[in-house]
Amino acid sequence: MSKAVTIFDTTLRDGTQGEGISLSADDKLKIAKKLDQLGVHYIEGGIPGSNSKDIEFFKRVQEFGLSATVTAFGSTRRKDSIAEHDPNLNRILESGAKATSLVGKSWDFHVHTALQTTLEENLAMIYDSIAYLKRQGMEVLFDAEHFFDGYKNNPEYALAVMRKAEEAGADWLVMCDTNGGTMPHEVYDIVSNLASRVTTARLGIHTHNDCELAVANALNAVRAGAEQVQGTMNGYGERCGNANLCSIIPNLQLKLGYNVIENDQLSQLTNTARYVSEIANVHMPVGQPFVGTAAFAHKGGIHVSAIMRDSRTYEHIAPETVGNRQRVLVSELAGQSNILSKAQEMGIKFDPENEETRQVISKIKDLEHQGYQFEGADASLELLLRQANGEMKELFVFESFKMLVEKSAGKPVVSEAFIKLKIDGNSLYTAAEGNGPVNALDNALRKALISYYPALKNIHLSDYKVRVLDDKDATASKVRVLIESKDASNSWSTVGVSGNVIEASWEALVDSLRYALQGQIKLEHTEVISAGQGLVNH
Amino acid sequence: MSKAVTIFDTTLRDGTQGEGISLSADDKLKIAKKLDQLGVHYIEGGIPGSNSKDIEFFKRVQEFGLSATVTAFGSTRRKDSIAEHDPNLNRILESGAKATSLVGKSWDFHVHTALQTTLEENLAMIYDSIAYLKRQGMEVLFDAEHFFDGYKNNPEYALAVMRKAEEAGADWLVMCDTNGGTMPHEVYDIVSNLASRVTTARLGIHTHNDCELAVANALNAVRAGAEQVQGTMNGYGERCGNANLCSIIPNLQLKLGYNVIENDQLSQLTNTARYVSEIANVHMPVGQPFVGTAAFAHKGGIHVSAIMRDSRTYEHIAPETVGNRQRVLVSELAGQSNILSKAQEMGIKFDPENEETRQVISKIKDLEHQGYQFEGADASLELLLRQANGEMKELFVFESFKMLVEKSAGKPVVSEAFIKLKIDGNSLYTAAEGNGPVNALDNALRKALISYYPALKNIHLSDYKVRVLDDKDATASKVRVLIESKDASNSWSTVGVSGNVIEASWEALVDSLRYALQGQIKLEHTEVISAGQGLVNH
Repeated sequence: MSKAVTIFDTTLRDGTQGEGISLSADDKLKIAKKLDQLGVHYIEGGIPGSNSKDIEFFKRVQEFGLSATVTAFGSTRRKDSIAEHDPNLNRILESGAKATSLVGKSWDFHVHTALQTTLEENLAMIYDSIAYLKRQGMEVLFDAEHFFDGYKNNPEYALAVMRKAEEAGADWLVMCDTNGGTMPHEVYDIVSNLASRVTTARLGIHTHNDCELAVANALNAVRAGAEQVQGTMNGYGERCGNANLCSIIPNLQLKLGYNVIENDQLSQLTNTARYVSEIANVHMPVGQPFVGTAAFAHKGGIHVSAIMRDSRTYEHIAPETVGNRQRVLVSELAGQSNILSKAQEMGIKFDPENEETRQVISKIKDLEHQGYQFEGADASLELLLRQANGEMKELFVFESFKMLVEKSAGKPVVSEAFIKLKIDGNSLYTAAEGNGPVNALDNALRKALISYYPALKNIHLSDYKVRVLDDKDATASKVRVLIESKDASNSWSTVGVSGNVIEASWEALVDSLRYALQGQIKLEHTEVISAGQGLVNH
Repeated sequence: MSKAVTIFDTTLRDGTQGEGISLSADDKLKIAKKLDQLGVHYIEGGIPGSNSKDIEFFKRVQEFGLSATVTAFGSTRRKDSIAEHDPNLNRILESGAKATSLVGKSWDFHVHTALQTTLEENLAMIYDSIAYLKRQGMEVLFDAEHFFDGYKNNPEYALAVMRKAEEAGADWLVMCDTNGGTMPHEVYDIVSNLASRVTTARLGIHTHNDCELAVANALNAVRAGAEQVQGTMNGYGERCGNANLCSIIPNLQLKLGYNVIENDQLSQLTNTARYVSEIANVHMPVGQPFVGTAAFAHKGGIHVSAIMRDSRTYEHIAPETVGNRQRVLVSELAGQSNILSKAQEMGIKFDPENEETRQVISKIKDLEHQGYQFEGADASLELLLRQANGEMKELFVFESFKMLVEKSAGKPVVSEAFIKLKIDGNSLYTAAEGNGPVNALDNALRKALISYYPALKNIHLSDYKVRVLDDKDATASKVRVLIESKDASNSWSTVGVSGNVIEASWEALVDSLRYALQGQIKLEHTEVISAGQGLVNH
């Protein structure tokens, strides 16, 4: 039987120290639920009493009945005081959490510089705090801050700290590479040394990514005897982030043979990682290992032809194991084989020898040259390919739009859009207000189309991104707009490019609706007209 | 004396396989120059003859007189053919490059599946190709594709491939972890084994980041005997990217004591990494190790007070060593100490006990709550702080703006802006067209202000970003606009938030000009008025 490793997730505490990351109590509760389904064993929720969000989190999470152990973070008691009277320790007890990770100093330099106390008092602070919380029945994880730096500078003292924590009854001794500067071989040696000395406590590892080695350091610690890994989803955290659990979990389970979570939980990894990035409102790098949209994406022509024979030629694991999928990227670098395999993926048949096929490939390359990027806009690409294949009618005939934004001092800003178009010979002229210009356009367009295409009411735009393509003169250069849309079960992305952000948005907006209504453009259109709807100008 | 490690940069070849990365010949030449200044030893420019960009690159780079060895990439000869007649090998010779990295198969599975030939023919392909290019006087680096997978599946064959390449005269045997699936301890063992067998050739390592272990794998290979590391700037590359040289170089030099580049070159690392990300038009993750803007940024209140005593408490190296700098982030999580230290960094004096100080801190927290983010908009924060400190006058008194975008079928889109404002009691009413709405606003605003503030002509907007803050209904929710502006020597960032993208842009635009004209708002204003300028409506 393979050895088990316990996963301690600190996305909700250490993760929120990352630049640009801020989670509400609701956000934290949603993420906790999702992490619990993924099967992590500890969920560190925050610092009880430090702010209103964390107070609310610890209160409401108790109703969820999570399988994971909810953990509260705090520091050892203040210097020259009594643990029983320490307000922070008492807030941990009051939080309702069953476990606590209690941080203490293990580097003599920090005891002197940051705590400004004696080495003996620091040991007493650690002993008293752990012993107090253990007497109250809590599970205690002792986070030895800067353990590796401490060990390298004064090994006797770093080890004395761990011995003291163990004597006080700590269940886990967690070795922190707080500054993220330790090398993997040092981690292996130091963990091995500590592992040979502990008797009752078990070892955990908490690494940071300042040298781009947090994952390697965590794996080496496990190989040297640690039984718990602390980290965050997507590696969020202060400075360069914490150890990324999205990489550590599959490495431990699929590569090193440890028993971490169930296989069906592992297949939720990609989904969980993307969910957390949505809630945290942080864009996931496309190339994020295991879970990124490009993690199993193939661009080079030679690679693409090889994976079409056998995907193991350029994939280190089957993407489905972690809930991800293979993609073939369309790009200038690639030959027509990429576009053809993309068409195949979409169920569109193209004959590579055909004149139309050559035309659509040259059109796609020309659009890419103008600044379109179909790697992030599969739906627009699919529309192009289906159109070339003669499958699509237009939604409507465009005549004009006008968009007006007005702002006077002391008054709210007003956005209005006016749209003229034709459907089957009927002129439609609509006007609508909106919260902003794109919303006004969206509203006016829906107003014009809804009676022809009632399915529109179930569709909404879920993300809107603008990218300036040429940074030499930002407001005078081309922009690319990407729009993501959703209905109850699907999401799709479309692209528009123009020197004008409103025109680019319009283009992506129209594509989004065309994609959503693909079926109707071909099938239901005539039927709706004959029912006498949609004949009135709105 | 410490041992030297050679750096082989493949940003211009393997890096361009990354999703969303596309470099023109000009881009490649600019990057090559910058890499040469950083001190990398080999610059792989591309695949000669594969496309017009690479042809142009190899031609023009010869005029630069780089210190680095420019290297051309290619494959071993085709199966069942003669090296001397191989068009790709001959294109390498014609490229003018002094060195070539020649990729060949070392995994039996790939020989059968991808090449569809025999193991013997593959050995002959490798031998013939290397021997041919060596006879023509080139330096040859043999890239053993999938060497680690090959070794794990059929060690005899993988080693036979390397022996054959060495016999043919290869100068370097480069062990590639092409699929990025190998664990660091496996890399150490396999490299050690090969190192004990080679006689004349030297070893190189080429890793990929699919398990988030590319950096660790490269370091382990060096510790086991490799003398060359291949990678890319910022880790660009196919799928999850190549090994990130921006982390490998400082780790080797500062942590492991190898001799890689000069110290003054190392202090250009951050600058080089950011330059490459600008040219590649890929945003650098804020938390990128060593070179990211958050790599030495401190958010937690306790950390901030400790680093103010001694920065070694939470920094693993001095940021200046790699040309980066320490930052203190202003955030909801942090106490007023962060804001005060930020003010101090800007040379603004605030008394923490003062009522105004408490007011500005509470205003900043309130704005953050509304969706402003000052972490990426230092200039807007500075304006707030200076305003609170009584240092700023307003640029003008705002009365109104109108913005109109019109598009009719078959005609180009038109954007116009109309602005009413007052300066010192003089009403100004200007109108301007632009390529897009923000450009029209920018033009109309400059038209109104330029005679009062002539310095405006040297300022332009260099980046424009829009972020939707609430993804539940993208076109109806709040947006945050970040604008980056530049003059000849500086760049600064400002922020605007609104439900309306035009209003948010206006806000960031006005802040950008206010920041640029800080001095003038206080000093030159009266003088210009008295010179009789700016009194006429434009």
